[in-house]
Amino acid sequence: MPITSRDVARLAGVSQPTVSRALRGDPRVAAETRARVQEAVEALGYVPSEAGRSLVTRRTKRIGIVVSDLTNPFYPHLLGPLHDELEKHSYRMMVFTERSDNQVPLEQLVDGSIDGAVLLTSNLDSRLPAELQRRRLPFVFLNRESSPHTADAAVVDNELGGRLAAAHLTDIGHRRIAGIFGPDTTSTGRDRELGFRAALAESGIALPGAFTHRGPFEFDTGYHAMLELLGTDPRPTAVFCGNDVVAIGALNAALSRGVDIPGELSLVGFDNIPMAEWEAFRLTTIGHDLDAMAAAAARLLVERLENTSGEDRPQRVVMAPQLVERATVAPPPA
Amino acid sequence: MPITSRDVARLAGVSQPTVSRALRGDPRVAAETRARVQEAVEALGYVPSEAGRSLVTRRTKRIGIVVSDLTNPFYPHLLGPLHDELEKHSYRMMVFTERSDNQVPLEQLVDGSIDGAVLLTSNLDSRLPAELQRRRLPFVFLNRESSPHTADAAVVDNELGGRLAAAHLTDIGHRRIAGIFGPDTTSTGRDRELGFRAALAESGIALPGAFTHRGPFEFDTGYHAMLELLGTDPRPTAVFCGNDVVAIGALNAALSRGVDIPGELSLVGFDNIPMAEWEAFRLTTIGHDLDAMAAAAARLLVERLENTSGEDRPQRVVMAPQLVERATVAPPPA
Repeated sequence: MPITSRDVARLAGVSQPTVSRALRGDPRVAAETRARVQEAVEALGYVPSEAGRSLVTRRTKRIGIVVSDLTNPFYPHLLGPLHDELEKHSYRMMVFTERSDNQVPLEQLVDGSIDGAVLLTSNLDSRLPAELQRRRLPFVFLNRESSPHTADAAVVDNELGGRLAAAHLTDIGHRRIAGIFGPDTTSTGRDRELGFRAALAESGIALPGAFTHRGPFEFDTGYHAMLELLGTDPRPTAVFCGNDVVAIGALNAALSRGVDIPGELSLVGFDNIPMAEWEAFRLTTIGHDLDAMAAAAARLLVERLENTSGEDRPQRVVMAPQLVERATVAPPPA
Repeated sequence: MPITSRDVARLAGVSQPTVSRALRGDPRVAAETRARVQEAVEALGYVPSEAGRSLVTRRTKRIGIVVSDLTNPFYPHLLGPLHDELEKHSYRMMVFTERSDNQVPLEQLVDGSIDGAVLLTSNLDSRLPAELQRRRLPFVFLNRESSPHTADAAVVDNELGGRLAAAHLTDIGHRRIAGIFGPDTTSTGRDRELGFRAALAESGIALPGAFTHRGPFEFDTGYHAMLELLGTDPRPTAVFCGNDVVAIGALNAALSRGVDIPGELSLVGFDNIPMAEWEAFRLTTIGHDLDAMAAAAARLLVERLENTSGEDRPQRVVMAPQLVERATVAPPPA
């Protein structure tokens, strides 16, 4: 059994209400009594119950981080900067992780154990955001968002990122281009594809069905789609992937078939996660500032919780993407 | 402001204590009144405060997962199986993540918001386990443990794993062997090194100082140590790494210097994380069943919480490691 204020009272030789008063700093408690209570607290290692404290203040100084896929190396990289920015404002974070976002139990989020939430893996059709708004729990979207924009969000300009990738490939002469996109049920998947297609179309290039793949933002998506692309004839000379994890899957599939990258095939990712820089990959990608995006989300949420921005409408921070050139892109083979 | 039982009372046209009684199923509340309260609860989306509920039951059905380094790809892989096993017993998990284990705020763990904890990244000298025992919060060690064995633990036989790696290398003729070990402040770092050294010694092979490196279980540890090893003369012909992440760092450093693996240099990791299988690495490693180890930890904790094992003494589940042969080991160059 945990140590309670009753144990403290017994050891200090006072009543339990006196312990509560002493710990609250109530002036009716004599200094000598307060000291005795404090000694008992330290001897027993007593910590006032979070439950009791929250009932009084209705504040927990805790933020829930909702993320459905921590094995995807992208998400853990956002947790560090989130943690540090929240800590600056004296908030602690608790990570709620489920197999899919639709399984995150709403009750866990709105039962008073957190003051607000950061949603990392929302789908465009997630029910969670609307439910949180209905229950009046403040939250912010990070990286992915739902549609329409009814809540604070820190995101990258995904459409522009897709355009940058297309422009880089067409500028150096690629015409037979394929895409392994993320799910069209996510803002990141949808908007990166949108920008990529739009820029190709402006250059008079279409994406044929056989050159279009879509799937979860996972290694296997890239791996299997690349094996299919390598079986087409003629093959594409360049492939854009919805994120770096997908691109690294695609790269490994090409390696397994002895395909020379970038000699035979160029490859572009998205996100510039640390792994993209590894010698084994040296992935050309669309980078953005992951740390700054995560910190922006934390700040938006804290401003909302503490009402410091004076702004009622949803705020949106949009990070600018940029091309990061490494070793997976070259002109098409002659 | 969150919706409270007062809001429910107002909408249902009853007093707030009546709402509490109705929700507890108190028979003094008339069926018709109970129905009206229930309607108001649903209309408002009211969830009883976790704080209020916990004060009554002293149970939260929540488990805290304490892990200091989620960007290390090893740990996220343990969260999935932990989640699934805890869910079978109707427990939810909350992840507490800090920059280092010594920063995990004890108060957050013992303030009544969780029933127990799983410790993933304890050091041998961590103060947290003793503090948790003093505050009577049940916990289990997973993968790493502190010394001596005073609490439940699910671990791999690290010493045997180190021995297996040494035996594999010496069996095919390696004599100039190096180690890039984990920190000797962790049970995994210490015991893998211990087993590796012991087996080498039994074969009459010593590890010279220039062939011994130690550092955090991170990519950079392997990368930098490998660059140093490549500068020795004569070079080692084989390197054992404290875990796969370190080995992948070492492999990338070798790639960056054009060193042929395994032609010029053999490499063995530890853990067999999914990445070890990627085509770019095909890492020979010491594997163990990550899912089973995580599930065992969850079961030990649930048994402790629910007192179902009838066993007071600390329980220890030790998984057997085995050699997983891939493509990074060959006989030494002639």
